[in-house]
Amino acid sequence: MKKIHWLVAASILSAFLANAHADVFPDEGLLKIDKKEAGGGKGVLHGAYAFTRDKATKDQAIKEISWLTLQPGDSIGYHPHVTNEDTYIIVSGQGVFKDKDGKDYPVKAGDVTIVRKGESHGLANTGKEPLVFVDVIAEQ
Amino acid sequence: MKKIHWLVAASILSAFLANAHADVFPDEGLLKIDKKEAGGGKGVLHGAYAFTRDKATKDQAIKEISWLTLQPGDSIGYHPHVTNEDTYIIVSGQGVFKDKDGKDYPVKAGDVTIVRKGESHGLANTGKEPLVFVDVIAEQ
Repeated sequence: MKKIHWLVAASILSAFLANAHADVFPDEGLLKIDKKEAGGGKGVLHGAYAFTRDKATKDQAIKEISWLTLQPGDSIGYHPHVTNEDTYIIVSGQGVFKDKDGKDYPVKAGDVTIVRKGESHGLANTGKEPLVFVDVIAEQ
Repeated sequence: MKKIHWLVAASILSAFLANAHADVFPDEGLLKIDKKEAGGGKGVLHGAYAFTRDKATKDQAIKEISWLTLQPGDSIGYHPHVTNEDTYIIVSGQGVFKDKDGKDYPVKAGDVTIVRKGESHGLANTGKEPLVFVDVIAEQ
């Protein structure tokens, strides 16, 4: 039995190490991270990450990719991107995006938003369904 | 009537100019571009672009964002990314992704793929539904 435990452990470790350098990240293996009051917002930001910016190397342009979900009433607070760029690509639901000038825009499935280096943004779910969006962070 | 035509033209031009520097790109305003046999693939790659890499400036990390669709049987051929990185984030449908080592992986909704600078990739719709994915290109 002990041998089987070691085989299972070795298999998990091997999958983890493979994933660290993978170029395909299956949905079921994405890293689940929930952030409370993200960027000073309300509620919980539910995330499923292919990889996170703290693991990215200096020579990689794309630092983080995730599927993010805000439940109705929840939000990401208005926050600055000092060194990187961040795009929210809305997949489903409805919300309000606050842009670099502090102006509010209604957003829905299909809409694309971006902030460049030095700009700020925020996003709130103002609808009745989950607000699901893809998040990609890149840096030069 | 002539005055109204000018007002409409001015309004369209104004919306276009605003979009050129926008940080919100509504779905209905995305730029539709169809590419035949993209990357040496089969059929047509249908795209709806927030902005394209040829319009990006040197100091922008994120060069291109689009919603892409391949109909069943169509594909993006295996092609290199010499100077930039490219992520395909699968939103719906099923396909086969060819990675940097030329290995094939089945992909489905939720899966994330990436190629880094100097690597190659390709994607084929092997399912019965449209294969819809988000594409983000970034460069240092």
